Amino acid sequence: MDWRFGDFTIIDLIAATTNAFNAALLARRPDHYKHFTVVGILLLGVIGGLAGGIARDLLLLQTPVALLNPAYLILALIAAGTALAIDYRSGQALRSGLFQFATSLALPWYAIIGAAEALDAGLPYLAAVLIGVVSATAGRYLVDLTCRVTPKLFIRSEWYVGTTILAAVAYLVCAAGFRLGVWPATLIAFVAAFVFRYAAMLRG
Amino acid sequence: MDWRFGDFTIIDLIAATTNAFNAALLARRPDHYKHFTVVGILLLGVIGGLAGGIARDLLLLQTPVALLNPAYLILALIAAGTALAIDYRSGQALRSGLFQFATSLALPWYAIIGAAEALDAGLPYLAAVLIGVVSATAGRYLVDLTCRVTPKLFIRSEWYVGTTILAAVAYLVCAAGFRLGVWPATLIAFVAAFVFRYAAMLRG
Amino acid sequence: MDWRFGDFTIIDLIAATTNAFNAALLARRPDHYKHFTVVGILLLGVIGGLAGGIARDLLLLQTPVALLNPAYLILALIAAGTALAIDYRSGQALRSGLFQFATSLALPWYAIIGAAEALDAGLPYLAAVLIGVVSATAGRYLVDLTCRVTPKLFIRSEWYVGTTILAAVAYLVCAAGFRLGVWPATLIAFVAAFVFRYAAMLRG
Repeated sequence: MDWRFGDFTIIDLIAATTNAFNAALLARRPDHYKHFTVVGILLLGVIGGLAGGIARDLLLLQTPVALLNPAYLILALIAAGTALAIDYRSGQALRSGLFQFATSLALPWYAIIGAAEALDAGLPYLAAVLIGVVSATAGRYLVDLTCRVTPKLFIRSEWYVGTTILAAVAYLVCAAGFRLGVWPATLIAFVAAFVFRYAAMLRG
Repeated sequence: MDWRFGDFTIIDLIAATTNAFNAALLARRPDHYKHFTVVGILLLGVIGGLAGGIARDLLLLQTPVALLNPAYLILALIAAGTALAIDYRSGQALRSGLFQFATSLALPWYAIIGAAEALDAGLPYLAAVLIGVVSATAGRYLVDLTCRVTPKLFIRSEWYVGTTILAAVAYLVCAAGFRLGVWPATLIAFVAAFVFRYAAMLRG
Repeated sequence: MDWRFGDFTIIDLIAATTNAFNAALLARRPDHYKHFTVVGILLLGVIGGLAGGIARDLLLLQTPVALLNPAYLILALIAAGTALAIDYRSGQALRSGLFQFATSLALPWYAIIGAAEALDAGLPYLAAVLIGVVSATAGRYLVDLTCRVTPKLFIRSEWYVGTTILAAVAYLVCAAGFRLGVWPATLIAFVAAFVFRYAAMLRG
């Protein structure tokens, strides 16, 4: 067991938690909901929260950290449960705004940490961006497939893929180009991607 | 090539065989059948039979044993072929009862062996349960997706996920808690899960 | 970064390029098209082009070469972009014939290189064939799932799976049986599979 919390682990746990929250909200939306049980929605939250990191670790040929450190599964379950509780108690307007906000909030983290770990593993920049995009979109892709909805990745979606590329590239420029530390590079990349995405969504 | 048959391999082959049989039966059911060819149903049997073990091995960063030992593919093909032969020759009532029975029979094995191998690999208990659930449900998940049906995992399904958690936890309690050997722990976990699941299905 | 181009890499790049071209054409066909954006179709091209090789590398427990060598992603994007350009400028009859031709052209490569790498890794022949089939069909499988179409693998499809088995077996017979070099064995296997498949399609 490995309860260590280095910088990468903290960023990774933020990614897992925000994406699990977002996936559980998504599974309750009318176009996605397919008479899921509560267990089903918690599971979809876990898949949406952990799939990105597991895909990244397998591509880098590492044992998935989500298996070594129990904090991942626990936080993903708590986040999905919280989303479910909020969803049951809130009105339609709040839900919709909350979901848009949660998507923008969740999207950049896995792109950043995916690019960061690929860079650390000595992969070329192009592969670091690719791993960032794969990590950031794998969870949503699986949830969409499971809900039998055309995956958002491939359709008109307010710069969904573009945002993940921006986050990964911004991190690489800050960390490899300007030699900033993990946290400054992460925060700059997050703010850039969050603002870009939220603006794209408001413009519709 | 590696034709060895240790305790884990025998349990694993039981898992592969029963799940392949079950997947081929499933692919012939009216809600799942999508004009598949015989080759298609054999393939779905192989996927349903081997996907759980392959997912487990990849998560544990091991070369999938189903690739090293040809017995896996051979038994999965025989099991799927047998299911197809029975399906063609039997009436609707027998088919439906047989399928329910086969599902209960197939479900616990991958949960048990997944938990057992994760325990052996030194992963924390929570990860062992998670790997048990993933191994036990991966095959059915892929077959449901391929047949364009909402995956059973997430909908009302007579304790489908609960049964896999019970099997994995029961094995861990017996093997890590009471220090029972692989076979006693496996049989206790199997009986507990099988009885639980079959009872849940009969009560509907 | 690793820009080396050994024999296996060249065959693998042909596989990635032809499959990416084919996947982008496929995503534009009326039964598959689901209002994808240009970015979506390029992504589907990348998935169709690289998924087979990534699946093979993961099953062989190797870091995916598509991540180490940037040529894979670049060629896949160029191939998908070319397919899109041709698709926009051509009539229905040309498109349909082109797609059939491109499928036959793309199908054998991953089956051959998958069998070749499994042989090199010392796996049994049966596993080499299995890895050949998985590599050759993984990309199309994911694209079909994403487009919410029953995967071609499992339905009447002019010997789709049979062709991949033939290509893998022919390579193994030439390379392991007759001790031919990589290129002669590859070309014999390719011609056998291409002719077989094209003939099967013309006979309908």
